[in-house]
Amino acid sequence: MSVEHRVLTDVANHVYHDHFELTGANSTHAGSNTWAVRQRRMKGGLSDGVDVVELDNGALRIEVLPTRGMGLWRGSFQGIPIGWDSPVKLPVNPAFVNQTERGGLGWLAGFNELLCRCGLSFMGPPGRDADFKDHPILGELTLHGKIANLPAHRVEVTTDSVTGKLTVTGVVDECSMFGPSLRLTSTIETTVGSNSLTIVDEVTNLSAKPAEFQLLYHTNIGRPFLEENGRFLAAINEMSPRDPRAAEGIDSFDKYEAPDAGYAEQAYLFRLIGDAKRQTVTLLRNAAGDRGLSLRFSLIDFPCFTLWKNTGAEADGYVTGLEPGTNFPNLRSFERAQGRVTTLAPGASRRVSLEMAIHADKNAVSAVASEISQLQETSTVKFNRQPQASFSP
Amino acid sequence: MSVEHRVLTDVANHVYHDHFELTGANSTHAGSNTWAVRQRRMKGGLSDGVDVVELDNGALRIEVLPTRGMGLWRGSFQGIPIGWDSPVKLPVNPAFVNQTERGGLGWLAGFNELLCRCGLSFMGPPGRDADFKDHPILGELTLHGKIANLPAHRVEVTTDSVTGKLTVTGVVDECSMFGPSLRLTSTIETTVGSNSLTIVDEVTNLSAKPAEFQLLYHTNIGRPFLEENGRFLAAINEMSPRDPRAAEGIDSFDKYEAPDAGYAEQAYLFRLIGDAKRQTVTLLRNAAGDRGLSLRFSLIDFPCFTLWKNTGAEADGYVTGLEPGTNFPNLRSFERAQGRVTTLAPGASRRVSLEMAIHADKNAVSAVASEISQLQETSTVKFNRQPQASFSP
Amino acid sequence: MSVEHRVLTDVANHVYHDHFELTGANSTHAGSNTWAVRQRRMKGGLSDGVDVVELDNGALRIEVLPTRGMGLWRGSFQGIPIGWDSPVKLPVNPAFVNQTERGGLGWLAGFNELLCRCGLSFMGPPGRDADFKDHPILGELTLHGKIANLPAHRVEVTTDSVTGKLTVTGVVDECSMFGPSLRLTSTIETTVGSNSLTIVDEVTNLSAKPAEFQLLYHTNIGRPFLEENGRFLAAINEMSPRDPRAAEGIDSFDKYEAPDAGYAEQAYLFRLIGDAKRQTVTLLRNAAGDRGLSLRFSLIDFPCFTLWKNTGAEADGYVTGLEPGTNFPNLRSFERAQGRVTTLAPGASRRVSLEMAIHADKNAVSAVASEISQLQETSTVKFNRQPQASFSP
Repeated sequence: MSVEHRVLTDVANHVYHDHFELTGANSTHAGSNTWAVRQRRMKGGLSDGVDVVELDNGALRIEVLPTRGMGLWRGSFQGIPIGWDSPVKLPVNPAFVNQTERGGLGWLAGFNELLCRCGLSFMGPPGRDADFKDHPILGELTLHGKIANLPAHRVEVTTDSVTGKLTVTGVVDECSMFGPSLRLTSTIETTVGSNSLTIVDEVTNLSAKPAEFQLLYHTNIGRPFLEENGRFLAAINEMSPRDPRAAEGIDSFDKYEAPDAGYAEQAYLFRLIGDAKRQTVTLLRNAAGDRGLSLRFSLIDFPCFTLWKNTGAEADGYVTGLEPGTNFPNLRSFERAQGRVTTLAPGASRRVSLEMAIHADKNAVSAVASEISQLQETSTVKFNRQPQASFSP
Repeated sequence: MSVEHRVLTDVANHVYHDHFELTGANSTHAGSNTWAVRQRRMKGGLSDGVDVVELDNGALRIEVLPTRGMGLWRGSFQGIPIGWDSPVKLPVNPAFVNQTERGGLGWLAGFNELLCRCGLSFMGPPGRDADFKDHPILGELTLHGKIANLPAHRVEVTTDSVTGKLTVTGVVDECSMFGPSLRLTSTIETTVGSNSLTIVDEVTNLSAKPAEFQLLYHTNIGRPFLEENGRFLAAINEMSPRDPRAAEGIDSFDKYEAPDAGYAEQAYLFRLIGDAKRQTVTLLRNAAGDRGLSLRFSLIDFPCFTLWKNTGAEADGYVTGLEPGTNFPNLRSFERAQGRVTTLAPGASRRVSLEMAIHADKNAVSAVASEISQLQETSTVKFNRQPQASFSP
Repeated sequence: MSVEHRVLTDVANHVYHDHFELTGANSTHAGSNTWAVRQRRMKGGLSDGVDVVELDNGALRIEVLPTRGMGLWRGSFQGIPIGWDSPVKLPVNPAFVNQTERGGLGWLAGFNELLCRCGLSFMGPPGRDADFKDHPILGELTLHGKIANLPAHRVEVTTDSVTGKLTVTGVVDECSMFGPSLRLTSTIETTVGSNSLTIVDEVTNLSAKPAEFQLLYHTNIGRPFLEENGRFLAAINEMSPRDPRAAEGIDSFDKYEAPDAGYAEQAYLFRLIGDAKRQTVTLLRNAAGDRGLSLRFSLIDFPCFTLWKNTGAEADGYVTGLEPGTNFPNLRSFERAQGRVTTLAPGASRRVSLEMAIHADKNAVSAVASEISQLQETSTVKFNRQPQASFSP
């Protein structure tokens, strides 16, 4: 049997492993013995009780947080760190996060992942969804929703010694009596020796009633990909600055500055260009063009893309966000009015996926940049210098 | 010595057992060796850190949750499941429940027990108790109070090999500086081979000031007791639909329908008839009348009874609630105005009890139904077809 | 090597000890073998997951709570208990504390320590800091701030067999993306055989932006130091009752009454007199003058001192608070307007310290009382019988 399958956590069936390890020391995978899949539990501080699943393919290493909605904490590729340095230094157990505090911004006290999901039943800023003003369980929204602060109740790993695939799957319920009942089944996969990982997420409406659903991958990247004169590349159909502050920087929306303690965040909203199959790719690359991180996804899955620039001081989180979304991260009622909120029928599922890849030399970075250029040639850009009413309120 | 007594948890004295087991394999009880008392700790997901104490008398098995205020998660009797299937699939550690979220409805994100207590210092809908408008620690109320989301700091079990009694006792404090200081000491008891369990709850006002106290047993039952053409039986003195929605269903208040995704909950409020000692019994039975669950209690303890019908889709929680209470589950200020809120003097205790029994054949179900019929004959029914101002606001 | 150094917890580096013990059984310290340094983890109830570090110098024993911001739970000196009996009986894991509940008073549900820090970015009553009305992450304040409900992510102990010093150091981050990023590094030290402990706290602004900072030691003392006819002693420059309720008791502000269930708290605000180096000392002593607890600190560190009298019933927390602070515990916007809120430059630190000592006979108590009398002689008292606008709103 080439495939090994292990259940790390299954709360319903009393399965749980404090420590778990499968490594190349025991079994060569796709000719390599430098891979590993591990789980550990953090103890102490705000991280107490946080489980970390590490996928290490020998080149790319990624730490997944089942306790935080299957987010990706951080990673590395051939020694290059992937992630960012948040003021929140370590993973925070959701038990310590009060999302309603501070005007509904409590989410920020746990925000430090490389990839943090926003959703599932709502995302965007805190506020009241006026379409549910008499229904507080549906209408009172906190920043970026609940999914990043919900732990998986089932986690399993699979390794395949022939293909070299390493996968972890987690199941996270965002469910309440009288509330939405959405299930995320997230599979994160990488292959021995590869420079990339793929996330396949399935969101299921467990309810017998239709349910709205929103999902945004808040992918957050710092050094060495982000730096002064680093660039964002994407094939753009239309773009809009989110607000007047973003409009100030419209001429250099795709360029990054050095850390600046006085910098206030800027966000740009995009409709991207896809290929014949509606696939697209976006890239963050460093100044020299020899370090790049790309995100590949389908515009069918994620028709809306947000670029978050937050090049404040290192100490305050020098970071940029590449954020594919089912919609833009505005208040749900605004997005609904724009027709951008998806509804899942009772029992229905939606499957979406994202590939994240690391490019560690000029050739590799250039190849992705060329691909983006070619996509761009298939369409003109509608470049709005001022916020557009259909993009943001 | 026929009695064995074990302390499973005593936080003050550093006693705690991750796993604990006493079973008939070691000691015959009342002639049976198929009984067991066990504790386990759940790990992973929202259940991480939840302790479960199982009482198994050989026929009736019940799982108690010290971590959730000594609620009864679920049970079974001779293989028949007792409980319901909530959209919240597994017990939720209160550390993950934010009761203030969603307009004070956060309690619903942890709601899935067979028996969940509402109280102790308040229960009912969220809102502001206007009698304490300048005193937020006493006046800002969230749905159904805090007791179900407070863990016991002391848990002990007792078994008696002669009588066959198995009991678990938990002590839960609902205490705050400058707030109410109410202690629940809950004992859940069953006897080897029996079809029933008894809850004896003592609520003590630990403060030197008088304290209001409210308690409702939110007893939630699904299949196989609840089903289309299942019935609710009680000896009724007076009843009132809670609101216009309940009034719509007044003619079939005691009958259940098949699951219906569009069904909106209905609640009926009752004054029941007791015997000479003010004891009464209520019954939920299935369509064929060969499966029944009865609750026996004193009208001195619980003068108010609420029937909650929530026959929505299976996926959204097909369930009915039989709810004996010290008052009706309206906002505390309304209940106070009706004279239904009990006050405990400094240091005073109130002891209440409830028996839950399972009836697994026609004869057993009929016997309880007859008992209810006989009680009913002792008084006429005041049957209000519309909401009454003294029952609900 | 006379110095032994051990890391008990270092979340970033996967270090954690459920149980840890260094005692005189292994190593004589300063000629004594009755000392100990221990860590244990509490399990069950609201204390589940709370770590307790005990420093026992053979005479003075103190229990420190890394999980609750390095607060001092309780202690004893030669068998005399140090602390108080709160309605909240046991340490509460911050995971169970919802500070926003009950109008922002949720902090009170975890309040039972001998010494509990208030701060770091705000303290005082809940409310909106009007200077940040458009910035909820900075402007919505809950009672007494966050630091007491944040667990240390690094804890280490040091013992020195020559000097007999026993120390525990904890590092606690009060950090959020887009929020304040303040780090507390707290060292609690005592010496074998000593009657005192010293707290040295360093607060560092990790941000590249200036940050306001507030710190108050809510030091809470009950019997046997507090009792009828017990006294508070301090060298007073100016004082003001906090409010009309405190003004009622102005003539006996320094005397304590027996427990009285009807007593409502009174608070007095002080400017104290220091010596040439701005050092001062305050004392609580019992009626007979043979039990005393003193706090020694610098008026440079803590220019504001609050006396909290709460001699309610024993059951409701018979306690007084001696509270050195960087400012008075009023809403931050009021304190800012009075020029009493400190700002830390980017990367800057402030180090403050406090000595707590126990005096167990008449001579020892008298010595401190004399010292206070001598300080008092260096200045007159400005004794305000009514609340002053510069002290409280």
